[in-house]
Amino acid sequence: MVYQKEINLKTTHHGEMYDLNTQVMSIVKESGVRNGIVNIFNVGSTAALGTIEFEPGLSKDMIDVLDKLIPPSREYEHEKAWHDGNGHSHLQATMIGPSLTIPIKGGNLMLGTWQQIFHIECDIKPRIRTLFVTVIGDC
Amino acid sequence: MVYQKEINLKTTHHGEMYDLNTQVMSIVKESGVRNGIVNIFNVGSTAALGTIEFEPGLSKDMIDVLDKLIPPSREYEHEKAWHDGNGHSHLQATMIGPSLTIPIKGGNLMLGTWQQIFHIECDIKPRIRTLFVTVIGDC
Amino acid sequence: MVYQKEINLKTTHHGEMYDLNTQVMSIVKESGVRNGIVNIFNVGSTAALGTIEFEPGLSKDMIDVLDKLIPPSREYEHEKAWHDGNGHSHLQATMIGPSLTIPIKGGNLMLGTWQQIFHIECDIKPRIRTLFVTVIGDC
Repeated sequence: MVYQKEINLKTTHHGEMYDLNTQVMSIVKESGVRNGIVNIFNVGSTAALGTIEFEPGLSKDMIDVLDKLIPPSREYEHEKAWHDGNGHSHLQATMIGPSLTIPIKGGNLMLGTWQQIFHIECDIKPRIRTLFVTVIGDC
Repeated sequence: MVYQKEINLKTTHHGEMYDLNTQVMSIVKESGVRNGIVNIFNVGSTAALGTIEFEPGLSKDMIDVLDKLIPPSREYEHEKAWHDGNGHSHLQATMIGPSLTIPIKGGNLMLGTWQQIFHIECDIKPRIRTLFVTVIGDC
Repeated sequence: MVYQKEINLKTTHHGEMYDLNTQVMSIVKESGVRNGIVNIFNVGSTAALGTIEFEPGLSKDMIDVLDKLIPPSREYEHEKAWHDGNGHSHLQATMIGPSLTIPIKGGNLMLGTWQQIFHIECDIKPRIRTLFVTVIGDC
């Protein structure tokens, strides 16, 4: 049993995070899958997905850490050809990754109480984002 | 064919690592799946999963690297609201990620000889951890 | 429906990157799967997989970033026992991860236009690499 659906997001700035739990849970319910997995995938190379305790402090810390490890201010080879100012965005997104797979049991996501699925915008301008949600399992 | 089982771990300290190969392999055998995938998922937001050559040197290096990149000593926004001293734990766990998917062929995990599945505790105190193992494939 | 195939790569140096889109797409077509997922997995603990805009600038930036975050010049505990000079290779590969899962819809990979699947060699000498590609879904 395979069920697929898109999630669309409008992002407004570098480091903006979305909590996707409600939307992903709703797609899992629609699918009728009781036991299996759900994969969430960010289409595009300057945003990423993961899990985190979704609260305002960590949302700020997350992009601060990425900007410390892969600073916007550094000179990247990507810039020399493209001059679009988002070399760090590409590298930050690749470091976190575009794909997340979560187990489903009894029709529920097996997440911790303080563990939310997040999307993070690493690009430097507003973007329209498409995420693919694929549910695979037994009904 | 979907088969699911939990692994429970008691962790004792920040940076403690477990080698999960034997337990995951045993669940794959029980499942009867010959060809497919197995997903391992850490429930909770302050521990992570991956693969590594599991030997004492790298086990020490792994938490050293995480503590250099995301230092326990830095001031995190997470602390200002929660004062639980584990802002770095959250960010380290998110960086490595909670989810790992490995191919199964002929009933075996397709890992390298020196490639082991690890769990790493990023929190600052002992925790009881639940991991979900989901096997999907053909028997 | 499960379909599996290997990809073999000869790598020549630390930081070498391959664009795998054509080979993975070809395996997905062979599989006949229309809707589902494909998992790509690097066998071994000193190379990694992910997605990136595959262009010469970012290929150079990627290994530069990894060598800044986890420098070859640092003393790692791994070296004290093994003296093989690749402690940083192990840690870099673990940071990026060996496994990537991508959605398939209508027989196509749901990647962005400038989003390619890459393999990165983190080891310090030429290696023969085996990747496992597992396609799961409905025909």
